[in-house]
Amino acid sequence: MGLEDIPVTVETGAADLTGNAQALLGEIAALLQRMLATGEGGAIDLASLPFSPADRSWLEQRLGRGEVEIRLMAAGLSTFNETACPGVWWVSHHNEAGIRVSELIEVARIPELVAAHPDDVKIGLERLNNLINELD
Amino acid sequence: MGLEDIPVTVETGAADLTGNAQALLGEIAALLQRMLATGEGGAIDLASLPFSPADRSWLEQRLGRGEVEIRLMAAGLSTFNETACPGVWWVSHHNEAGIRVSELIEVARIPELVAAHPDDVKIGLERLNNLINELD
Repeated sequence: MGLEDIPVTVETGAADLTGNAQALLGEIAALLQRMLATGEGGAIDLASLPFSPADRSWLEQRLGRGEVEIRLMAAGLSTFNETACPGVWWVSHHNEAGIRVSELIEVARIPELVAAHPDDVKIGLERLNNLINELD
Repeated sequence: MGLEDIPVTVETGAADLTGNAQALLGEIAALLQRMLATGEGGAIDLASLPFSPADRSWLEQRLGRGEVEIRLMAAGLSTFNETACPGVWWVSHHNEAGIRVSELIEVARIPELVAAHPDDVKIGLERLNNLINELD
């Protein structure tokens, strides 16, 4: 039996992990802990640390997918996908050309940009009242 | 010139309005006002009042579409579409067969079902901590 008979498995990608994705899980756990204790969440910009494509897909697999998917169409499309860890959201922002311009992990009951802002609610209510008055 | 020469426009649908859709706009405005004052929103079940297909499309047109679309996939699909009035959401729940089983207008900064519940966050955090321990 020669060397060529020994089965070889190539663990594709594992060698490309920088260790940052594993470290990120700890940061996410700390943010969740803080949110439960104080109500205050936080976000981690994936562009702010050396992060390989292997890191990205490793993290994506570990966090998994949750039940909620959110699309916000403003200047460009933003998506907020709940992970299998409730309160942990995978957030991507795209420009008008559809190019992803940022990607982050947000820890919050709901991502800040998704909830209606009271100032916008006020403006909408005024418009609604005008519409109602026009109907009378 | 006879009667047949007078142009006639048929306002399709207008005759089918029950008046309930118009009344609903006032209820929605009152809920928004209360939410701004107290933080407490509310919901109106569209099945709870006589509501014709004409009423439904009239209301849909008046409320318009906002920037946010949310899909929640639990037993069946639920959709939460922001209207052009921030804080007013058009909510539909479907069963596992894809049949719409309820439809409501929810007034809230974010629909209650969409935000992560602290109990679920706790459970998710435990799972995440177990995963982190296994990696060590």
